[in-house]
Amino acid sequence: MKWDTMILEEDCLKLLDQRKIPQKIEYFKASDYRKVIFGIKEMVVRGAPAIGAAAAHGVYLAVREFVDLEEKEFQINFKKALEELGDSRPTAVNLIWGIRRMKKVMEAKKGLGRKDLLQELFSESQKIAKEDVEINKKLGEHGQKIIPQNGRVLTHCNTGALATVGYGTALGVIRAAHAKGKDIKVFVDETRPRLQGARLNAFELLEEGIPATLIVDSAAAVLMKKGEIDVVIVGADRIAANGDTANKIGTFMLSQLAKHFHVPFYIAAPLSTIDFDLPQGEDIIIEERDPREITHWEGNPIAPEKIEVFNPAFDVTPSENIKGIITEKGIIKAPFKENISRMKPGGDYS
Amino acid sequence: MKWDTMILEEDCLKLLDQRKIPQKIEYFKASDYRKVIFGIKEMVVRGAPAIGAAAAHGVYLAVREFVDLEEKEFQINFKKALEELGDSRPTAVNLIWGIRRMKKVMEAKKGLGRKDLLQELFSESQKIAKEDVEINKKLGEHGQKIIPQNGRVLTHCNTGALATVGYGTALGVIRAAHAKGKDIKVFVDETRPRLQGARLNAFELLEEGIPATLIVDSAAAVLMKKGEIDVVIVGADRIAANGDTANKIGTFMLSQLAKHFHVPFYIAAPLSTIDFDLPQGEDIIIEERDPREITHWEGNPIAPEKIEVFNPAFDVTPSENIKGIITEKGIIKAPFKENISRMKPGGDYS
Repeated sequence: MKWDTMILEEDCLKLLDQRKIPQKIEYFKASDYRKVIFGIKEMVVRGAPAIGAAAAHGVYLAVREFVDLEEKEFQINFKKALEELGDSRPTAVNLIWGIRRMKKVMEAKKGLGRKDLLQELFSESQKIAKEDVEINKKLGEHGQKIIPQNGRVLTHCNTGALATVGYGTALGVIRAAHAKGKDIKVFVDETRPRLQGARLNAFELLEEGIPATLIVDSAAAVLMKKGEIDVVIVGADRIAANGDTANKIGTFMLSQLAKHFHVPFYIAAPLSTIDFDLPQGEDIIIEERDPREITHWEGNPIAPEKIEVFNPAFDVTPSENIKGIITEKGIIKAPFKENISRMKPGGDYS
Repeated sequence: MKWDTMILEEDCLKLLDQRKIPQKIEYFKASDYRKVIFGIKEMVVRGAPAIGAAAAHGVYLAVREFVDLEEKEFQINFKKALEELGDSRPTAVNLIWGIRRMKKVMEAKKGLGRKDLLQELFSESQKIAKEDVEINKKLGEHGQKIIPQNGRVLTHCNTGALATVGYGTALGVIRAAHAKGKDIKVFVDETRPRLQGARLNAFELLEEGIPATLIVDSAAAVLMKKGEIDVVIVGADRIAANGDTANKIGTFMLSQLAKHFHVPFYIAAPLSTIDFDLPQGEDIIIEERDPREITHWEGNPIAPEKIEVFNPAFDVTPSENIKGIITEKGIIKAPFKENISRMKPGGDYS
């Protein structure tokens, strides 16, 4: 993509403001960790891997802010910052993963002076960001094999460069298939209520020159029934140890329809999205967001003021609906519990 | 409802402008048949029964406009008006049904002078409108029996007073159950792209004091999976002789999910929505509407300008997904072909 999703600077985190795409290309400058939290909560930055990387740089910015405090004061303030960052959104496990990566550096380097520690943390958040792009490219390379020549792919929500530090997960797989010269076509669910498909996927796919057709979410069933979809690929916000996967609301619907119509259904996510300690999808906390995401558009009301709203941001797809989980280390298939546990590394992803 | 969906006057058709609800309550004055066509095409009025009644009054307005023309001129102009009215939207069969009712009066009364004929046509369009409300009340009475005490009902698109001349079809059933004192709760699909659920259902249900919760269309699957929906009831735009039913895009998705989760799925429609001459759903013409319905909101772009769009207004639910078709003469159940053919009257509905 022409634009960076995020730019990790010494004194701030610059976020491509995803609330404004495609109408405006603007960066939101988060000059402290509180503004990083605001950016995550308000979805200036969204997508599990992007949230993870942003939160990591948020940890760095907190340490930077408190660098001159006395130890006790530092610990109080830093602990508070970590808690607030960790609570900024509940579902994407990458958020916690990113924070943990930074905490590990702090523990490993606790002998260092604060200024040196700060430098180590800056390096670590840069490393997380760099690794994310590399991981996505590997993931794309593994995943593109499942897209046939002339394949018609359905996807939901944005999982592209914008949902990550770069390249993308499910959209990275699509990108990789296109780069291989496969003559593919993408059907893009608009993805209500935040319209990540209509706004962000459409933006990325047009920029990349990949043929894409936008549909309302509820039209996907008809395409599957007519045999016009060869494969469904979506991203993930949290994958339980048994393969159950939380992803954008609407994903479960697609998985159920795909199963019925014998369309292979894949998840594409880095291993950092797997919550190895969480036994099953039922245990995943599903964020409920502001009703105004449904009842309003750009501040103007769509629906009558007093209507009650149920606005879950995610749903859980049971692993029995999933054909495979595409990761940077290959495609995990059933039996998921066994095969996921094999992916559990001793180090980074634990 | 406090407001009439349409007011049939001697010199015009006043349509409650459904493009503006709930923000504004305004009537659109169609002073000739061309403006009636505009109103139907642009969805100032929508909903199969409402379209049928509006088109019937459009026929009256055409005769009124041409009343003083010489016979040959009258025939040329009138034929053109009928064709244009008939072509205003392709899927809802009630449109053709309404026009046919008016043509029958013209044939039956061809001995009359034009002014007297005009009076007969005015009476007929009033009669169609009046009958529609009566039919819906009967339909509601039959249908409410399928809603249990404390029933949680999911519905899609608007099928209320606004989609008809009054009372409603699927929403009429809900209205009738509520009037019987059943303590029901309604889940309202927002119904992209035109948001008839968020705008119109929410408006009607709030006005009626029926507890209702708005969701995005793709969230319905989760509610069904969790056992939070007892019954799905939707309307219809055209029902084939075998029971296959065209209705708002997204209906097929719901029917498939309902079947999977063993949630009874009902259609509510007057017999005038049955196209007795059409063998099966595959033969129903599905209207594709302006891409801007998806890419724009109130004239402002949501998606990037050049994205391709597939925007079918309807989809077809196969009869095997339907538990029953609620009509003014009772609930039609499988085998649909046989039981629908029994409903075919010699007269009005042929």
